[in-house]
Amino acid sequence: MIIVMHPDATPEEVARIVEKLQSFGAVVSLSTEGGRTVVNGTVETLLQDEAPWDSFPGVERVMPVVRGGRRVGRDFRSDDTVVQVGPVAIGGRSLTVIAGPCAVEGREQMLTTAQAVHRAGASMLRGDAFKPRTSPYTFQGLGKAGLEILAEARSLTGMPFVAEVIDPRDVELVASYADMIRIGTRNMSNQALLREVGRQAKPVLLKRGRAATVEEWIDAAEYVHTEGNPNIVLVERGVRGFDTSARNTLDLTAVPVAKLLTHLPVMVDPSHAAGRRDIVPALARAAVAVGADGVLIDVHPQPEAALVDGAQALIPDEFAALMRDLEAISSIVGPR
Amino acid sequence: MIIVMHPDATPEEVARIVEKLQSFGAVVSLSTEGGRTVVNGTVETLLQDEAPWDSFPGVERVMPVVRGGRRVGRDFRSDDTVVQVGPVAIGGRSLTVIAGPCAVEGREQMLTTAQAVHRAGASMLRGDAFKPRTSPYTFQGLGKAGLEILAEARSLTGMPFVAEVIDPRDVELVASYADMIRIGTRNMSNQALLREVGRQAKPVLLKRGRAATVEEWIDAAEYVHTEGNPNIVLVERGVRGFDTSARNTLDLTAVPVAKLLTHLPVMVDPSHAAGRRDIVPALARAAVAVGADGVLIDVHPQPEAALVDGAQALIPDEFAALMRDLEAISSIVGPR
Amino acid sequence: MIIVMHPDATPEEVARIVEKLQSFGAVVSLSTEGGRTVVNGTVETLLQDEAPWDSFPGVERVMPVVRGGRRVGRDFRSDDTVVQVGPVAIGGRSLTVIAGPCAVEGREQMLTTAQAVHRAGASMLRGDAFKPRTSPYTFQGLGKAGLEILAEARSLTGMPFVAEVIDPRDVELVASYADMIRIGTRNMSNQALLREVGRQAKPVLLKRGRAATVEEWIDAAEYVHTEGNPNIVLVERGVRGFDTSARNTLDLTAVPVAKLLTHLPVMVDPSHAAGRRDIVPALARAAVAVGADGVLIDVHPQPEAALVDGAQALIPDEFAALMRDLEAISSIVGPR
Amino acid sequence: MIIVMHPDATPEEVARIVEKLQSFGAVVSLSTEGGRTVVNGTVETLLQDEAPWDSFPGVERVMPVVRGGRRVGRDFRSDDTVVQVGPVAIGGRSLTVIAGPCAVEGREQMLTTAQAVHRAGASMLRGDAFKPRTSPYTFQGLGKAGLEILAEARSLTGMPFVAEVIDPRDVELVASYADMIRIGTRNMSNQALLREVGRQAKPVLLKRGRAATVEEWIDAAEYVHTEGNPNIVLVERGVRGFDTSARNTLDLTAVPVAKLLTHLPVMVDPSHAAGRRDIVPALARAAVAVGADGVLIDVHPQPEAALVDGAQALIPDEFAALMRDLEAISSIVGPR
Repeated sequence: MIIVMHPDATPEEVARIVEKLQSFGAVVSLSTEGGRTVVNGTVETLLQDEAPWDSFPGVERVMPVVRGGRRVGRDFRSDDTVVQVGPVAIGGRSLTVIAGPCAVEGREQMLTTAQAVHRAGASMLRGDAFKPRTSPYTFQGLGKAGLEILAEARSLTGMPFVAEVIDPRDVELVASYADMIRIGTRNMSNQALLREVGRQAKPVLLKRGRAATVEEWIDAAEYVHTEGNPNIVLVERGVRGFDTSARNTLDLTAVPVAKLLTHLPVMVDPSHAAGRRDIVPALARAAVAVGADGVLIDVHPQPEAALVDGAQALIPDEFAALMRDLEAISSIVGPR
Repeated sequence: MIIVMHPDATPEEVARIVEKLQSFGAVVSLSTEGGRTVVNGTVETLLQDEAPWDSFPGVERVMPVVRGGRRVGRDFRSDDTVVQVGPVAIGGRSLTVIAGPCAVEGREQMLTTAQAVHRAGASMLRGDAFKPRTSPYTFQGLGKAGLEILAEARSLTGMPFVAEVIDPRDVELVASYADMIRIGTRNMSNQALLREVGRQAKPVLLKRGRAATVEEWIDAAEYVHTEGNPNIVLVERGVRGFDTSARNTLDLTAVPVAKLLTHLPVMVDPSHAAGRRDIVPALARAAVAVGADGVLIDVHPQPEAALVDGAQALIPDEFAALMRDLEAISSIVGPR
Repeated sequence: MIIVMHPDATPEEVARIVEKLQSFGAVVSLSTEGGRTVVNGTVETLLQDEAPWDSFPGVERVMPVVRGGRRVGRDFRSDDTVVQVGPVAIGGRSLTVIAGPCAVEGREQMLTTAQAVHRAGASMLRGDAFKPRTSPYTFQGLGKAGLEILAEARSLTGMPFVAEVIDPRDVELVASYADMIRIGTRNMSNQALLREVGRQAKPVLLKRGRAATVEEWIDAAEYVHTEGNPNIVLVERGVRGFDTSARNTLDLTAVPVAKLLTHLPVMVDPSHAAGRRDIVPALARAAVAVGADGVLIDVHPQPEAALVDGAQALIPDEFAALMRDLEAISSIVGPR
Repeated sequence: MIIVMHPDATPEEVARIVEKLQSFGAVVSLSTEGGRTVVNGTVETLLQDEAPWDSFPGVERVMPVVRGGRRVGRDFRSDDTVVQVGPVAIGGRSLTVIAGPCAVEGREQMLTTAQAVHRAGASMLRGDAFKPRTSPYTFQGLGKAGLEILAEARSLTGMPFVAEVIDPRDVELVASYADMIRIGTRNMSNQALLREVGRQAKPVLLKRGRAATVEEWIDAAEYVHTEGNPNIVLVERGVRGFDTSARNTLDLTAVPVAKLLTHLPVMVDPSHAAGRRDIVPALARAAVAVGADGVLIDVHPQPEAALVDGAQALIPDEFAALMRDLEAISSIVGPR
């Protein structure tokens, strides 16, 4: 680790840093540049979290040489992780398309949609029973009844399903029905929830927080892994930006960057990124072309009757046409 | 509510919107502008959440006339709310200064700091027993033992204390010790937690999420209020920005804006916004000048030994000097 | 145009707005919602720029119904514009790939690169003679000598070239050599320069400003068009974001959004967006898949000797491999 | 300078970097950390701009130890610069308040406003003759006639005035009338213009670009200084953010940060940051409290008749009340 001292730092302040570094077994060398003492402390373990280096008197800047020490990192495992969800292998050789309505609104809506996306070639089903909403006065999901409808849709189509959980006390319930558990963007930094889904066995779909850097997103995955659950799939879904023409700024750069930093599969949710139907197919095509392991697409048989996010849902015919493009692009970008 | 139809919208599509608006009792008038039909639906209740208006075929844009219908909003109550925390009245005529270490690290550290900030004129104590951290491998707080030390610091100084809660299952425990409960920036959108603190009686300090608009922050407060707890204080603590010279971009504009939109008190946390000690006093002075009801300041007797966020903590002498400035500025900006 | 009055607006304040709207020939209707008077003024011309509506006493919010009135807008022309640059048709049925070094550094570097990208199938050449740099102490370009080298590269390969201009006084010079003129991201809001390139005949490549919304980017194009030059190509090249893993946040959402709002071709520059070579191919593939009319790719025969932006340049072999992918993806996304 | 090699870097790649560093006279030392070779090259001059270090094969990360080498930097001069504009000393012991309309719209408007702000205690006058506007169809300023009116206002009140220049070919004209020249936010990266104002003698007010980091803003000032003009005042005026409740996100953190990095005076423009009158006084108070050397305030005798930015202008009475607060806060924050 490199520690740059302030031009006015005293010899005592430098000595204190050196001594502290040595107390962790570091070999320390000093050099001078731009009127500053540069302290280089080297040791096998990561020093950056061992002490509040930037709090020491006389320190101008702390520059860790390596970010790392994470089990979800490439340094820990160089092969790509493949996450198995029933018959579906996310991160494997074929593209994973998860489709369905944003929320389960009723039995007929869910079953109709499930059959339509199954026919069009989707691999997995989505549909939430617990919805985090910006306003407390809007539809918050059907709860357990919604999970039962999802289970029925799974029986009907053979497709596994993923459902969101928003409360650590509901993890056991959701896990008892769903094939995969989703942590939404609002809860990426909810560490109580991350730990709880880390303690159960179902694979986890972890959405990126709206203002999270790629590094922070990977740190959130580490919270899940650390509790014992290595089956994690990252999902880019747009970050907060200044342009209001779409709901979020889809950050496709994050896909190759995350794949360089971690061995986890990375998917993209263009529907929630866009918030508007007309640009969803273009963004989905781009997501596959950038190298994502799959996409999540909102599909609704009758968007204008949707209780949640109807404006971004494709109708089944649009989804079927999109599937054909995604498979063709995937065949060029692959062999995965 | 105003709904602008697409230039290519059919008469049937317009009729469908009109009919839907009328089904909620709205009086509807139509006009034409820029080749578009403009539908104006007027009724006493708020229509925007009643149907997915932007999902209807032919709709180009939905423009709600009024944002509102929130109990924490100025429309609901025009007088300022004063939140009482033991002897301290936040939002009242005097400035509230909450000070202490970021985390409780031990008995001596906490008691020393408590006495120092008390002497300097602070009104309340801060110090966390449960810490949400970016990495799972760093110090996560002392838990219940930390709360007991905080209670001892309260006895010693007579100052009430606020502590963070990060898991809905810990709310009862934290509330049994603390005088006020804090929801941190990572959990502003954790609705399970918001509802849980809304169901207990202790006042709530609600930090703004790192990527939350002012409107979304107020919506989060509504989640707490809706469960029965009206004693909420908002805290601006910096949003995510592109400049890396400080940890966050302190958004002081949000203070007067939030005070126009809600009747809740608004405080500022310059320490967590800055992440570096040298600019904390300047930002604290600005926070008081912009009209905040108070500030939260990290103080640590020995920042280089701090386990969490030492780089941003003032030492007690710096804090005492700052207190004098804050009181002087407050006397100009007030009578509150 | 819709003007929402403040709940406390007086009848006189409402009357004043009504009268002002009527003075422009608008038909005015009034309604009430949420305790506010809603004024709806309708007329053929766009009213929003006619008066400072939000400056009138009693006004709470101004909501223009239509954004528009721009010659570069879809309302003005519904067919796609095709911009002809010598033999190259940008926005036509085939993908346009502009490649070359960031800056012309010397004769050999430029000619070698030109031949290499020509062999790999590029349609046009890039290379700058005038470089805007963050620091005044770095290489600023070869000036006129650089333009002469570019002209030689054109003769050698038959490919037209685009070069940046950064000073209105250099427009004539650059236009006398180049086949197309580029306005860089730093100058998207430099209206003196926009007007100057609008007054000459060569087509213009207009990069999006680093903090410009899609609407503001289109407004910048309107400055060029308004002076008489309709041959404008928009280039998305990344916006300022909070994640530092790449130099910018490439905003591919802007591509379909801009194509809905304007009839101009839209290209993407993944090299300047990324600032790092390893993710450029993935972003280029995504750009084609999202529907861009072409891409700009930095290519350098020896990136570690580059004077400008070597870290983002592909070597010729990498570029040739990428070309094959881009053509394949283009054939799926098209028929253009 | 520290260069971290990739874990897979070959000995030849390391040797190449070492040799290149030595070619600039650097003393090089190597260490190992986290499986990476860390190369530390030390020399008196700044190495970071000498070669494209991140373009060399095998390099993972380049970490300059010192940012610097700028004449506007604290390393170059530790004393605060005071910029003299006629009788006004910006950066000196007293607060500088520059006030006036956004644009000169006519003789009466300008003279009335000048007298009003003079009476209220302003030190300098603002008012533009050349206006950069987002749309080419809105008012663009009175040009030379506007400058003549400003000169008349100066004669009337004795106050020097600042006016914006947006075209390098107008610098001489504006400089022949104005006491100080302003570079607006849209042109902070317009290096042709920066160089031109650097070549004349009038002091320069340099606004921060909407997406510029503090470092980039200081680099822009260096462009002016490098041409021979050291009389530069920085102005923070809000950056692009995601919240739409004000026009920009005023970044007051940038004020103390910039003052640590440069010796130039730093002012704040709360009017253009806010874009709405009701929060301007609060932001102005905060700007003075955070330590700015002064503020720019839009004042208009009749905001609803303003051709530009009326919504953010204070009326003269509001301005006079604000002046009293600013002076009181300044007296607490100072002795400057």
